[in-house]
Amino acid sequence: MIKKVLKFGGTSVGTIDRIQHVANIVSRECKAGNKIIVVVSAMAGKTDELIKLSQKIADDFNKRELDVLLSTGEQVTCALLTGALIRLNVKAKSWLNWQIPILTEGEHSNSRIINMNVNKINHFLNEGVAVVPGFQGISKDGDITTIGRGGSDASAVAFAKLLKADTCEIYTDVDGVFSSDPNKIPVAKKIDKISYDEMLELSSLGAKVMQSSAVQTAMMYDIPLQVRSTFTDRKGTIIFDQQNIDYSKSVTGVAYSKDDAKITLIGVEDKPGIAANIFEPLNKAQINVDMVIQNISSDQKTTDITFTIKRDDLLKTREILKINKKIKYKNITHNDKVSKVSIVGAGMVSTPGVTYKMFRALADDNINILAISTSEIKLSVIIDEEKTLSAVKKLHTIFDLD
Amino acid sequence: MIKKVLKFGGTSVGTIDRIQHVANIVSRECKAGNKIIVVVSAMAGKTDELIKLSQKIADDFNKRELDVLLSTGEQVTCALLTGALIRLNVKAKSWLNWQIPILTEGEHSNSRIINMNVNKINHFLNEGVAVVPGFQGISKDGDITTIGRGGSDASAVAFAKLLKADTCEIYTDVDGVFSSDPNKIPVAKKIDKISYDEMLELSSLGAKVMQSSAVQTAMMYDIPLQVRSTFTDRKGTIIFDQQNIDYSKSVTGVAYSKDDAKITLIGVEDKPGIAANIFEPLNKAQINVDMVIQNISSDQKTTDITFTIKRDDLLKTREILKINKKIKYKNITHNDKVSKVSIVGAGMVSTPGVTYKMFRALADDNINILAISTSEIKLSVIIDEEKTLSAVKKLHTIFDLD
Repeated sequence: MIKKVLKFGGTSVGTIDRIQHVANIVSRECKAGNKIIVVVSAMAGKTDELIKLSQKIADDFNKRELDVLLSTGEQVTCALLTGALIRLNVKAKSWLNWQIPILTEGEHSNSRIINMNVNKINHFLNEGVAVVPGFQGISKDGDITTIGRGGSDASAVAFAKLLKADTCEIYTDVDGVFSSDPNKIPVAKKIDKISYDEMLELSSLGAKVMQSSAVQTAMMYDIPLQVRSTFTDRKGTIIFDQQNIDYSKSVTGVAYSKDDAKITLIGVEDKPGIAANIFEPLNKAQINVDMVIQNISSDQKTTDITFTIKRDDLLKTREILKINKKIKYKNITHNDKVSKVSIVGAGMVSTPGVTYKMFRALADDNINILAISTSEIKLSVIIDEEKTLSAVKKLHTIFDLD
Repeated sequence: MIKKVLKFGGTSVGTIDRIQHVANIVSRECKAGNKIIVVVSAMAGKTDELIKLSQKIADDFNKRELDVLLSTGEQVTCALLTGALIRLNVKAKSWLNWQIPILTEGEHSNSRIINMNVNKINHFLNEGVAVVPGFQGISKDGDITTIGRGGSDASAVAFAKLLKADTCEIYTDVDGVFSSDPNKIPVAKKIDKISYDEMLELSSLGAKVMQSSAVQTAMMYDIPLQVRSTFTDRKGTIIFDQQNIDYSKSVTGVAYSKDDAKITLIGVEDKPGIAANIFEPLNKAQINVDMVIQNISSDQKTTDITFTIKRDDLLKTREILKINKKIKYKNITHNDKVSKVSIVGAGMVSTPGVTYKMFRALADDNINILAISTSEIKLSVIIDEEKTLSAVKKLHTIFDLD
């Protein structure tokens, strides 16, 4: 008997018809003899609707009460899905955050699940399906907390971890993880198997199939994930440990992010602590710095530092650099119309020539590389934004992903 | 320092603007130095919307899960109103059914509040306003329960009772309790003070301002009620003990119910237990019998029994009487187009001639009385339905209520 966590996102439970469809999926899993925990999101659009209501009252609506408000979204789905299961003669019961309870720590609207009473749920799983709300829990003081947008993925993985489930299936509105954005690159293909690391690189680079922190937790506790579509019977993408994957291809996917900006500080005085002095104030201002590249400059006494940020943060970043007394540099330049294109693949490290192949391909298409950053399973370049799609297409082709 | 329970119904919190208006009322009460518990209903239409969702899944949607579903309605209002109060710099906090907790007994969708942890709330009232959901609680097993439609009134009175509040104010969309239906009888006037008994007779007779069981509880524990409008500053109707009322008028109000039917069993064998034999099967079939009148018939050995029921139950009632082997009667007649008109007043018992005055007035207008029933504070007659409004108007006038 296998213990499974099945998670259904907002579009999967967006209408009554879809909830009944989900009930059929769960019923089938149940009849196959599995122990099932179902984690549900709020019906599509519901959370936004509730947020809008709160904003009509106050932009800075009290965070504790916002969590009380938003948590009703998943509660509604829990009740409706459980009713639909019972209608299909499946023994099922909704378990709310306080009924389990699901214990969280951290601030309102940004909490983390740290524990839960597993005995009650485990005991019930011998009898029927437990339907639980994603995205929420309670604090040690007994207040309702939520764990941030998209937090139902994190809930699902936390449940899988705490209940020692054999697998965690993320049902969503796409067929799985693709080698690139299928809406923009029509030849992009679904990936059958992918490692946690690759998935993390892909999702943090804009392939928004699953929340990154949920993948990280799954990796940490070695919980096999499967991302699959609620609306087809097709197999999805299995995400698991790198060792279980046979790499016939060096590159798994091509990702890109838009709306980036690049800043270069030229002739920075090269002494210990200078990078910390630059980035600490940016971090305090909650500016998310992505790539950082540092080169020795021509005079060997100073250095050039390039980094990328989201375009919206450009003005604020320049202001902060201007008033920063701790750093000295000759000049500052920026480019606010850049994008980051990355190839990702756990097989890259063992395949010689990937780097060269990428640079050559871009050069052949007259795409100028503004900065380069590499990791074991990823190679990212900063290029002019207008060349983004042609670069992605080219790389997708030359690495045999079409 | 006075401790008040303020209850706001669905129309009073039906939009964000109205919720903000309610926040202003609560804030004013708070600044007057009162300790405030606010009981809220779901936003108008919300409960029906949720019920419709559940019915799309199943007509007999699981009752436990229906309560989980419906309870979200009041939770949303709780959070929004609390946020609106905090926005007005009023210290406030929402307290959900399980956070207090509010303990209920009885079946799902038809529970009764039996207890709650008053210490937590009382302690908090020293600091701020407690906003609590009406209509719900939890069972001893920790399941969410609801206490029937309109149950927020019952919640408010239960809170007033358990927290030993000085008063319980029911904010609604009418100015108070009227001497008759103001929509049909334009000269109907708001009653300033009324006794619990009168209120019960009026509300059970169709003047649906407050749920009857809530009034009963208030009477039992001597909790002064006030019914008033959320949308005007006018004083409402105070409902309290009969002794506190100075009766200048014998009759307080004229009520009526429609869609009634009358059945008469003629020549029923007169022996002990015959009434029980007639009504027991009707009760089992959940047919609500209203008035029952029994007369000795002309031959002194048999009796005639007349009773009224809702018109919708007429066919079913005749079927049940037909197959009832325990009773014998000569004939059965019915009239399916009758209504009940009642005068209500705690002063009636001490005012001679009220009965005669009523009968004379109806006779003067050629309104035939089909049956009569009296209690200490009420006198009801069954008449032809088409004469209902003219009878109500006439009685309203002759008892000086215009």
